[in-house]
Amino acid sequence: MKKISFQDYLPFIFLTALAVIGIFLPTATTFADASKYNAADIAWILVAASLVFLMTPGLSFFYGGMVNRKNVISTMMQSFIATGLISIVWVVVGFSLAFGDSVGGLGIIGNPGTFFFFNNVPSGQPWSLAPTIPLMLFALFQLKFAVITPALVVGAVAERIRFTSYVLFMVLFSILVYAPIAHWTWHPEGILFKMGVLDFAGGTVVHISAGCAALAGALMLRRRKAHVAKQELQPANIPFVLLGTGLLWFGWFGFNAGSSLGANALAVGAFAATNTATAAAGLSWIFFDVIRGRKPSVLGFCIGAVVGLVAITPAAGYVGVPQSLFIGFIAAIVSNIVVHYKNKSSVDDTLDVFPCHGVGGMTGMLLTGVFASAAVNPALTESGWAYGNFNLFKNHVLALLLVVSYSFIVSWAIFKFINFIHPLRVTEEEEELGLDVTQHNEVYHPNSMSVDGLGKLAEEEAGVQHS
Amino acid sequence: MKKISFQDYLPFIFLTALAVIGIFLPTATTFADASKYNAADIAWILVAASLVFLMTPGLSFFYGGMVNRKNVISTMMQSFIATGLISIVWVVVGFSLAFGDSVGGLGIIGNPGTFFFFNNVPSGQPWSLAPTIPLMLFALFQLKFAVITPALVVGAVAERIRFTSYVLFMVLFSILVYAPIAHWTWHPEGILFKMGVLDFAGGTVVHISAGCAALAGALMLRRRKAHVAKQELQPANIPFVLLGTGLLWFGWFGFNAGSSLGANALAVGAFAATNTATAAAGLSWIFFDVIRGRKPSVLGFCIGAVVGLVAITPAAGYVGVPQSLFIGFIAAIVSNIVVHYKNKSSVDDTLDVFPCHGVGGMTGMLLTGVFASAAVNPALTESGWAYGNFNLFKNHVLALLLVVSYSFIVSWAIFKFINFIHPLRVTEEEEELGLDVTQHNEVYHPNSMSVDGLGKLAEEEAGVQHS
Amino acid sequence: MKKISFQDYLPFIFLTALAVIGIFLPTATTFADASKYNAADIAWILVAASLVFLMTPGLSFFYGGMVNRKNVISTMMQSFIATGLISIVWVVVGFSLAFGDSVGGLGIIGNPGTFFFFNNVPSGQPWSLAPTIPLMLFALFQLKFAVITPALVVGAVAERIRFTSYVLFMVLFSILVYAPIAHWTWHPEGILFKMGVLDFAGGTVVHISAGCAALAGALMLRRRKAHVAKQELQPANIPFVLLGTGLLWFGWFGFNAGSSLGANALAVGAFAATNTATAAAGLSWIFFDVIRGRKPSVLGFCIGAVVGLVAITPAAGYVGVPQSLFIGFIAAIVSNIVVHYKNKSSVDDTLDVFPCHGVGGMTGMLLTGVFASAAVNPALTESGWAYGNFNLFKNHVLALLLVVSYSFIVSWAIFKFINFIHPLRVTEEEEELGLDVTQHNEVYHPNSMSVDGLGKLAEEEAGVQHS
Repeated sequence: MKKISFQDYLPFIFLTALAVIGIFLPTATTFADASKYNAADIAWILVAASLVFLMTPGLSFFYGGMVNRKNVISTMMQSFIATGLISIVWVVVGFSLAFGDSVGGLGIIGNPGTFFFFNNVPSGQPWSLAPTIPLMLFALFQLKFAVITPALVVGAVAERIRFTSYVLFMVLFSILVYAPIAHWTWHPEGILFKMGVLDFAGGTVVHISAGCAALAGALMLRRRKAHVAKQELQPANIPFVLLGTGLLWFGWFGFNAGSSLGANALAVGAFAATNTATAAAGLSWIFFDVIRGRKPSVLGFCIGAVVGLVAITPAAGYVGVPQSLFIGFIAAIVSNIVVHYKNKSSVDDTLDVFPCHGVGGMTGMLLTGVFASAAVNPALTESGWAYGNFNLFKNHVLALLLVVSYSFIVSWAIFKFINFIHPLRVTEEEEELGLDVTQHNEVYHPNSMSVDGLGKLAEEEAGVQHS
Repeated sequence: MKKISFQDYLPFIFLTALAVIGIFLPTATTFADASKYNAADIAWILVAASLVFLMTPGLSFFYGGMVNRKNVISTMMQSFIATGLISIVWVVVGFSLAFGDSVGGLGIIGNPGTFFFFNNVPSGQPWSLAPTIPLMLFALFQLKFAVITPALVVGAVAERIRFTSYVLFMVLFSILVYAPIAHWTWHPEGILFKMGVLDFAGGTVVHISAGCAALAGALMLRRRKAHVAKQELQPANIPFVLLGTGLLWFGWFGFNAGSSLGANALAVGAFAATNTATAAAGLSWIFFDVIRGRKPSVLGFCIGAVVGLVAITPAAGYVGVPQSLFIGFIAAIVSNIVVHYKNKSSVDDTLDVFPCHGVGGMTGMLLTGVFASAAVNPALTESGWAYGNFNLFKNHVLALLLVVSYSFIVSWAIFKFINFIHPLRVTEEEEELGLDVTQHNEVYHPNSMSVDGLGKLAEEEAGVQHS
Repeated sequence: MKKISFQDYLPFIFLTALAVIGIFLPTATTFADASKYNAADIAWILVAASLVFLMTPGLSFFYGGMVNRKNVISTMMQSFIATGLISIVWVVVGFSLAFGDSVGGLGIIGNPGTFFFFNNVPSGQPWSLAPTIPLMLFALFQLKFAVITPALVVGAVAERIRFTSYVLFMVLFSILVYAPIAHWTWHPEGILFKMGVLDFAGGTVVHISAGCAALAGALMLRRRKAHVAKQELQPANIPFVLLGTGLLWFGWFGFNAGSSLGANALAVGAFAATNTATAAAGLSWIFFDVIRGRKPSVLGFCIGAVVGLVAITPAAGYVGVPQSLFIGFIAAIVSNIVVHYKNKSSVDDTLDVFPCHGVGGMTGMLLTGVFASAAVNPALTESGWAYGNFNLFKNHVLALLLVVSYSFIVSWAIFKFINFIHPLRVTEEEEELGLDVTQHNEVYHPNSMSVDGLGKLAEEEAGVQHS
């Protein structure tokens, strides 16, 4: 049992403080007037929020199955812990920053006091863009989006990041990167919203921001020893990747079709676009692999499908079914090619978060500017470039540049700051032994091994790696 | 890296063509008039479609856990890829063939142009039998049924079918077998529909057709070497089978209770019948095993439960709760006995798709003709044999003969045709090495093995098999 | 193949009798008048019932991942089989005992004839406290609660209980413990209901009762040999625990938010409280571990989250979001400390069911008496102690004493009775070999082993244990 430092006490002290504050806060009156709500919309968004929750454990399996077997548990944990961490951050301050009153009416950031500790949320007026469901339900649905975004970044820094450093990163990223970009994009006073930028379900807010943070993390943490040594590591458990993909696809129906914020025509259209793009992208990835001389693999189909889900996210409520097929098809090819070049470079983005989520999100965002159609979504005031309107596309390009720069630079700064106060990366020896044992004292598939065997396992593994 | 043949380019070229066509198709106007829809019904069917989606990855685990460990990944992939393949087939032409205008009013097949590329779907009139939800939602719900049907067939041909041949089979089966039988059964002008044949959620359309295709595939592909050598192979991962069963049971609530096409009394009744039959069948299978001297096994409970789900599928909206208990109970015993005799025969239906889905579907279809009751479902014009009406049962027998013959013969012809242009079966050496390595270049549980170890693994495995 | 005794025939005979009775029962008329129902509420509760179903396979993974690898399958099976067993028990008699007419108006137990074999359920009046959904849907939603409760007990008796004895325990527990406590708490004439005891979603009915039965079982079965020998056994598969936790958390949204019995404000509030308490509890557990010198582990986060889910269950519809944060925070610390002391004691509650579900349920129940607020839930006639009303808290203490005593004593008596007619515990040799092989003739991760290898595996395992 190791000696406990003051630093070790900090998380517990912080959580204790929040819990104690909690009991002294007044219990908010619930739902002054329910007559304005639509019960069917409530039913669907309750389900959609649950589905989006399930995406985070799904992501744990998607990522956990792809890393080396001495880092399976740590990788899964780094994603899954976001369900705890960001739920609390969001309730206390995140929702306010993203959806609170815009400070100074500038559209940059929300007022942290508007919904501090979900104050005013249970009894508040519905969100202006979701008038048929309670504000609290909107806040919960958005909470699940906030949870999965930092969990996505894990894939780029897996197998070498210190657990406590990553925990701190997630909190800071959520406050300093996610909340502002959500405010810009989805708050009626947000700077991108006012420009007319369309992001139906978070292609920009979720995927581009996570993808750019992932790139910053991969560059800051530098390469894994195994990557430097050009060891080809096998994924630990491909069925886990398939399970993760299945849960992500399933949950994404809540993510995209739920972003209509009601059980309506728009939800149905978003569901159709989502499924079509995903199917096309999964096939596109493996068919493209085949013409490049590779075998059609489960990993390929799964990664392709996820790229399709990412790319259709900003577009889902704005494009027709045939166009969504094209979006999925082309996004998978673009990401496949970027992965190829990344593999030749010295960037060690462990699980290709930047090529898949970052680039996939960008492809989707740009193609939303091309294929968005007022015929599909009558609420649109302008259609995309393909229908004669260059302005929307131009704004999407500008927004993309802003979001990419902001999320990359601020994420870089957060990683730098953390590294300054607490090393980002585990020691060489810990990396060799694996993060499961060294960060969590747990092993994947212990095969009846005793606790004493843990160190031995790690040694053997390290041996296998060297040979 | 192998040399790429012209054949290798075909799938990519085909998908590219569809994607390019996609961008030139007009974006359909969405939902001219939404006032006729019921938001609660939309909410429930959005969820039900998502649940039915989840059944296909569930099936991947149900099957993948039962095969030998050198074929886990390939078996899972063969099922899971249907989510990609059939989604595209259905959007482009499948929905038209099944639910388009009946060609010549004959009730044999739908017009492929009616909904080509989901043209007319977003803005069309609702389906006549689902007037409260958008046509697009009906098409998406049906899409998920079309996806899982060819995925079911995998179990019979696992561990020896070439991946690319199976992909081709799924596409042809979906067009030539699934779509016509769906048209016959569920289109108001369909020949079976007009005979008054009842198939609430696809016992005939999904399970009998898949079961008979499975038998055709098993016969055409002949026996696995391990089967010939009477090697008893252990299932690779029984927890995977349990996971698959849990996801299938969960998803089947969408399959059966969703087939009411609304959030109504009928959905509740179908849910009750489904859960009761499944519970009874799972218990029936293991209790029957016990009186035959076997231990009550997880596999037995899981397979029994799936047989119960299959058998109650055609009946779910037509029978009472006590009758559903009987249907589950008896279906499990019938399938258990058929599995027993199949195991003594030389038919190598790897994972008992014919005894479980084929025979289970037949049992359910016949018992629907016995126990369907106008008291349970007021929409019925005639009750079943148990309530004095032999006519319904007689029609179910005739329909069963037609569907069994058609699906077996056409599936046989499809397998024969594919074998003519491209070998159905992997080489002897590939079978020995396992399909995971040889078809997908992936392994299940690599245990830190390097890529070079793949071949070695396969050799060792082969050794284990021989010893 | 072993000789079959008369006892072996009993389960099959019993099920056969039920099935045969089933076909002679009249088919109940469905839903005389549907106009009183709310389709949106039906949609949400159909989904919620499906979600609660998924918790039981989720629990199988949560438990199965934590035991030794020679007992993975048997532990999973013991939980999962409840989906079959209790579904039938509930349809035949359980629902009547819990929600039937109170015998003699005493509020002790329901009349088994009221809804025998779901008679009167399909066409009955809605449940008085759920007027907008069909009675059948209420009965199905409650069925899923009845299923998971005895499945929870498994964790305390795992790795040494005979399968057939556990099956019998579940049936008797469901009838003699679960149904009466549900009647007391949730039936308008129930003794606890009349006292004003609040149990929103089953903290008392489900978790305290299961936790106390677990303690009785652990004491009655005595310690595992490995526990006596102080062997530290590694959990078989930590990713399974994470998967189980993900599915439980996901399903618990149906459990708690579904307990509003409609798609309304209350469901949204319960969802918010559930997610907040769970997040706080997961973090609280690992942060507390850290200040006690342990590493933050996946198991810790998962177990903590489940304790949070348990503790918020009775409170979810009655407390505000800030208070739910406190409830989760403190419940995790309490259970963490109880686990610590249990580990020093000689009680062998294999997977800490009593400290987590029993104590977690008690913490939640008492804090419901503290923090329940009429501001949050206008239906409340009295708020809790924190808002000046000691009476509610006092009644919760009394109810707790009653439920703890009753469930512990009756469960003890059931275990004693079973042991009298059929040994509860497997033989020493079977325990050594593991329950997977000896109870089910199945193994976890056979690694291409032949059937003959089963015994050998078991021997090797035993060897490993001894070394």
